[in-house]
Amino acid sequence: MKQFFKILKKSKKSRARLGLIKTPHGRIKTPAFLPVATQATIKSLSPADLKEIGFEALLCNTYHLYLRPGHKIVQQLGGLHKFMNWPGPIVTDSGGFQVFSLGFGLEQEIGKIGGFFPGQAEQPKTVKPKLAKIDEQGVEFRSHLDGSKHRLTPQKSIQIQEALGADIILAFDECTSPLATKEYTRRATDRTHRWAEICLKAKKRKDQALFGIIQGGQWKDLRIESARFISQLPFDGLAIGGSLGKTKKDMYKILDWVIAEMPPEKPRHLLGIGQPIDLNKAVAQGIDLFDCVYPTRLARHGVFLTERGRLNILNSAFRQDKKPIMNGCSCYTCQNFSRAYLHHLFKAKEMLGPRLATFHNLWLIARLMERIRKEIREDKK
Amino acid sequence: MKQFFKILKKSKKSRARLGLIKTPHGRIKTPAFLPVATQATIKSLSPADLKEIGFEALLCNTYHLYLRPGHKIVQQLGGLHKFMNWPGPIVTDSGGFQVFSLGFGLEQEIGKIGGFFPGQAEQPKTVKPKLAKIDEQGVEFRSHLDGSKHRLTPQKSIQIQEALGADIILAFDECTSPLATKEYTRRATDRTHRWAEICLKAKKRKDQALFGIIQGGQWKDLRIESARFISQLPFDGLAIGGSLGKTKKDMYKILDWVIAEMPPEKPRHLLGIGQPIDLNKAVAQGIDLFDCVYPTRLARHGVFLTERGRLNILNSAFRQDKKPIMNGCSCYTCQNFSRAYLHHLFKAKEMLGPRLATFHNLWLIARLMERIRKEIREDKK
Repeated sequence: MKQFFKILKKSKKSRARLGLIKTPHGRIKTPAFLPVATQATIKSLSPADLKEIGFEALLCNTYHLYLRPGHKIVQQLGGLHKFMNWPGPIVTDSGGFQVFSLGFGLEQEIGKIGGFFPGQAEQPKTVKPKLAKIDEQGVEFRSHLDGSKHRLTPQKSIQIQEALGADIILAFDECTSPLATKEYTRRATDRTHRWAEICLKAKKRKDQALFGIIQGGQWKDLRIESARFISQLPFDGLAIGGSLGKTKKDMYKILDWVIAEMPPEKPRHLLGIGQPIDLNKAVAQGIDLFDCVYPTRLARHGVFLTERGRLNILNSAFRQDKKPIMNGCSCYTCQNFSRAYLHHLFKAKEMLGPRLATFHNLWLIARLMERIRKEIREDKK
Repeated sequence: MKQFFKILKKSKKSRARLGLIKTPHGRIKTPAFLPVATQATIKSLSPADLKEIGFEALLCNTYHLYLRPGHKIVQQLGGLHKFMNWPGPIVTDSGGFQVFSLGFGLEQEIGKIGGFFPGQAEQPKTVKPKLAKIDEQGVEFRSHLDGSKHRLTPQKSIQIQEALGADIILAFDECTSPLATKEYTRRATDRTHRWAEICLKAKKRKDQALFGIIQGGQWKDLRIESARFISQLPFDGLAIGGSLGKTKKDMYKILDWVIAEMPPEKPRHLLGIGQPIDLNKAVAQGIDLFDCVYPTRLARHGVFLTERGRLNILNSAFRQDKKPIMNGCSCYTCQNFSRAYLHHLFKAKEMLGPRLATFHNLWLIARLMERIRKEIREDKK
């Protein structure tokens, strides 16, 4: 994986970098946002749509594809690229986040910042049975599809990701709950470090890049320790995972601690974060890669991203509104449909609604990332 | 509406005709199939998709659009074409079929042929409360959305359709149950005839064509009487509605009775029929226009149409099948995805599944209609 990542320019105004990741399936201009194709599809969109929007790479979820259709079937069908007909670079996560979020996230409805997923209630409403059991070797969990028992270990995660065949794969880590104590988080972070070394040893394919994941929760010493430990291992890139504090301010502070310890020559992936404001700020802190369900999940609930904030199309104010979602937006949705029509589609639960919303939201994010790269090039960011 | 319909060629082999319908929003080459955009959208597809598939015209449902978003809102937004961003010809039905099928169809799960919708059980399973009450002036019914009371009359149906602004609108008829007695069907058909005259008088807009609807159920004398009565009124075109017997053979026989009485110079629309075999046969009997939810509804259930019959993609035999849905099909779906991937999308309930299936099924029907027109041109049909 020589010259896997090349930094083309460092900003004079911030720690932002302009880079290029080379993979067997093409290049990724960084900073880049990766839309999430959980089940090997960006919900409602075709690969042709994604090409039109201008994305170069996607992220797929190992946990979901392992359970359905199964990594061996994907492998027999020629790997993820061929399976989903996406010719560009693909990243797979390790399955860790999903397995653990079934253990603590679904249980307590907890997200990555502030303890809650954006848009969710402030207080956990339901307590669901714990679906994951952890030990030193791995995690035992039950499928959310049929309740069947499964076990994921660092070795198994790498095997699955090698079968799926993405260009960039992630080490298997323990993603701790934001409600975990410091003592527990320390033990989990140490385990993640041991698993990181196991993942490096388990990896057989030479054509995939492997990223390590930095954990440590909200604690400065744990984060710095984890950043140092993971950074000295021979990973092709580094990812920042786990809980990022209670507020956005916490997150930016944690990123500052961690990024200061990361080697400049390796690409840095901030896992699961993707609100426009975060993309802007984290790039200036030195992040190169993002993935997040934020734009696509909101879209399916009728929430459109605009330069002036979110617009909930189900609001009755839009019932007779002839304007497009966002003035000046050149996406297919804004060029062709009124807010009133989109309101109707969502009210009538028509599939075209989520599709047009997903297209718009991803278009907006793609244009934002283009603008960010341009600003770095021109030393404006 | 001069030169609304022009017959370009009559087949030497059958009663098939090649024609051209001119509307304010463009021409329709006939015989033509109109996909059904019930709520002002062909479920899951964009207008750009429909253009790519090659359809010239669509049919929208007045009943649904009257209830949501409401015809006045559509009118304020510039009419259906602008609302849904479909620049080509649009047909609206009268609302009659839906209102009555809520009365007898939903109640007894009854379709247009054989008393049952295709693919449904042979025996009515549930008896739902009657939602429609009929009198000489019109029909009172309850909304399937919120149970609210509404009344539809011939005058009201025309007013709604004028507000919606389609290029071709339909007279309000009573669509009787296939289980109705001959005596009841006779009275209903007479009422449909009186309503036909009311619709012609109620019509104000000069830029819309109005089609009359022939009823009469499965009885030869009633069908012939209705065909004669509706044919002598100054409609721009004629549609064949109502129950078409118990078998396909019954339907072809009924079409023979009716078409023999219809003036050759007016376009003939067979309402709600659209299986490939029916399109082929009814064209040879002299039908010019079709509309049907058949290809799009099947698609949403994972059933793909092929030249060798239907293919239910949920069948586990397709789990690892690398082949496309149909060899030789040049649609986006067949050119880019395997049966295994489509099986996965439907199993995982991913929106892209119905979208790719709808695209393929409509592509197949569009190619079939092209082939039919070519065969008439070459005297092969």
